[in-house]
Amino acid sequence: MIKIPPDAWTMNRALRLAEKGRGWTEPNPMVGAVLMKDGERIGEGYHSRYGAAHAEVEALKACEAAGLDARGATLFVTLEPCCHEGKTPPCVEAVIASGVSRVVIAAEDPNPKVAGKGIAALRAAGIEVSVGLLAEAAKELNRFFYHFFETGRPWVTLKAALSLDGKIAEAPGKETALTGKVAQRYVHGLRHEHQAILVGAGTVLADDPHLGVREVEGRDPLRVILKGKKALPKKLQIFRDKNVLILEEMKVEEVLAKLAELDVHSVLVEGGQAVFTAFLKAGLVDEMQLLLAPRFLGPKALDFVELDSGFSLEGMHTKVLGKDLLLTGRPHFEKRECA
Amino acid sequence: MIKIPPDAWTMNRALRLAEKGRGWTEPNPMVGAVLMKDGERIGEGYHSRYGAAHAEVEALKACEAAGLDARGATLFVTLEPCCHEGKTPPCVEAVIASGVSRVVIAAEDPNPKVAGKGIAALRAAGIEVSVGLLAEAAKELNRFFYHFFETGRPWVTLKAALSLDGKIAEAPGKETALTGKVAQRYVHGLRHEHQAILVGAGTVLADDPHLGVREVEGRDPLRVILKGKKALPKKLQIFRDKNVLILEEMKVEEVLAKLAELDVHSVLVEGGQAVFTAFLKAGLVDEMQLLLAPRFLGPKALDFVELDSGFSLEGMHTKVLGKDLLLTGRPHFEKRECA
Repeated sequence: MIKIPPDAWTMNRALRLAEKGRGWTEPNPMVGAVLMKDGERIGEGYHSRYGAAHAEVEALKACEAAGLDARGATLFVTLEPCCHEGKTPPCVEAVIASGVSRVVIAAEDPNPKVAGKGIAALRAAGIEVSVGLLAEAAKELNRFFYHFFETGRPWVTLKAALSLDGKIAEAPGKETALTGKVAQRYVHGLRHEHQAILVGAGTVLADDPHLGVREVEGRDPLRVILKGKKALPKKLQIFRDKNVLILEEMKVEEVLAKLAELDVHSVLVEGGQAVFTAFLKAGLVDEMQLLLAPRFLGPKALDFVELDSGFSLEGMHTKVLGKDLLLTGRPHFEKRECA
Repeated sequence: MIKIPPDAWTMNRALRLAEKGRGWTEPNPMVGAVLMKDGERIGEGYHSRYGAAHAEVEALKACEAAGLDARGATLFVTLEPCCHEGKTPPCVEAVIASGVSRVVIAAEDPNPKVAGKGIAALRAAGIEVSVGLLAEAAKELNRFFYHFFETGRPWVTLKAALSLDGKIAEAPGKETALTGKVAQRYVHGLRHEHQAILVGAGTVLADDPHLGVREVEGRDPLRVILKGKKALPKKLQIFRDKNVLILEEMKVEEVLAKLAELDVHSVLVEGGQAVFTAFLKAGLVDEMQLLLAPRFLGPKALDFVELDSGFSLEGMHTKVLGKDLLLTGRPHFEKRECA
């Protein structure tokens, strides 16, 4: 049997708590926290939604509400506590005030406003701080957030529903419901998890899509439309509220720079062919989520992309979604040998 | 908890025994048998390879070898015992001579030489016979065999390695190793399970394939080559022994009739594009086994098939094979609504 050290168990619990905030905290990261004292869990919490209290504060509140004393306890937190005034007061102050004697942090905050300053502040207050326990899992959890601060660009997820011959519609401009209910529900979950969703004007004009989150509980992402030369009638569903951004034709790099300015850390690119092609050509797709329907659409159907060369899907993972399949991976264009 | 009746447990065991003969018994079916007396298993056996003793005889032999008495026992057998002289004497005689008082049969033998006559002979000898326990599983086990006697044609399995854009090679005539080791081993298993393997002359001339079973323990299927106008040089690997059949250009229906004449119950169609297209157009593919590699080959690559219309893969099942995916299902060409 593999023995898991108690600290790793606790941090894993904090990570699972953090996960509960998925889709609700952006542009903040998901964070979870657990307070331990004498081998007992005396409080825990997570950042539940943007604007709400941070995980550390929630854990301290829970401890107090239970009539317990945080003094001398160890705080496990999945991300370095913040030291700057944001929507809420800095967590570092609350942590110091609580009297905890040790703080175990999974990963440093990549946000330059924090980036080590939270840790330094805790240490300056005489608190023992260790960093790096389950760091990889903590960074994976907030991969949009880390990617944003590392690259200055939002994480780009390309989502497409494909037939087994790599087609996305029976003909150009013809809406084709390739995938089933389970896959559609999955897509709504993906939308909730991303801060923005992006489609070309062609898709909007052909399908008049809702582009919101309906099949699952979630919040609508910002709808980004890459406008071409044609006008977009105001009666289209995308204009149903103000949560929409129309970008006049621009390069992929410019689109992402614009979204980064708006503090958008993740964008779900949903088509059509021209948009998929542009993002892949620019080499700016971080992840592909392909929903494969068990059909061949034949030679008259519309190709997924218009590229001269092929590419591979690296690190492919697979999941059955009802009658369809989900393949996830990262596009890779370099010439390589097959196994 | 679901209670499984003891008889079903026993028949399931017989089915698992039968399975051990997969690929070795053709053109005979796989058969397993278990002898039960007073709630104890007193003998069991299976048809291990073409020409060897049948399952019932193996079970009776095992009983005798253990010094036990089959008189008054119940024989569970996955297929109706044969009543005709074949490679071995009729099983019905051995069963009657053994003194068993009851025979439980999963499914009737579809071979007109038997088809109920075995059951009638057992009953005429005063043995209590019941038929139909786990019949569906027994028919599924020997689906090639049942299909052959129901339709007069061999079961056609189409196997292709595809990219995610439905291509089979980087260019016509260019051998492309799309799939990895695990998928390749799987294909060798498929070859072992089929009585014949079929490819077009183009594939043979382009790749000089071995078309044998090497990656797993198994027996080489009959190699059927659909010859076109070009000559096939004698130095090709397919001519390494006599287990090869060259058919001059003929229709799919004629090819299958020819194979049926040779008592071939199953054929694995491995390409190329023209052969895949002909079999699908003829509506004579019973099962597709598609190995999906995590790559897009791009617009210059060779399409899997040349068909005017699309089709769906019904009853799709999925399995991860190393870095690749296996999709199995049945092609369906009728126009249908998507869910």
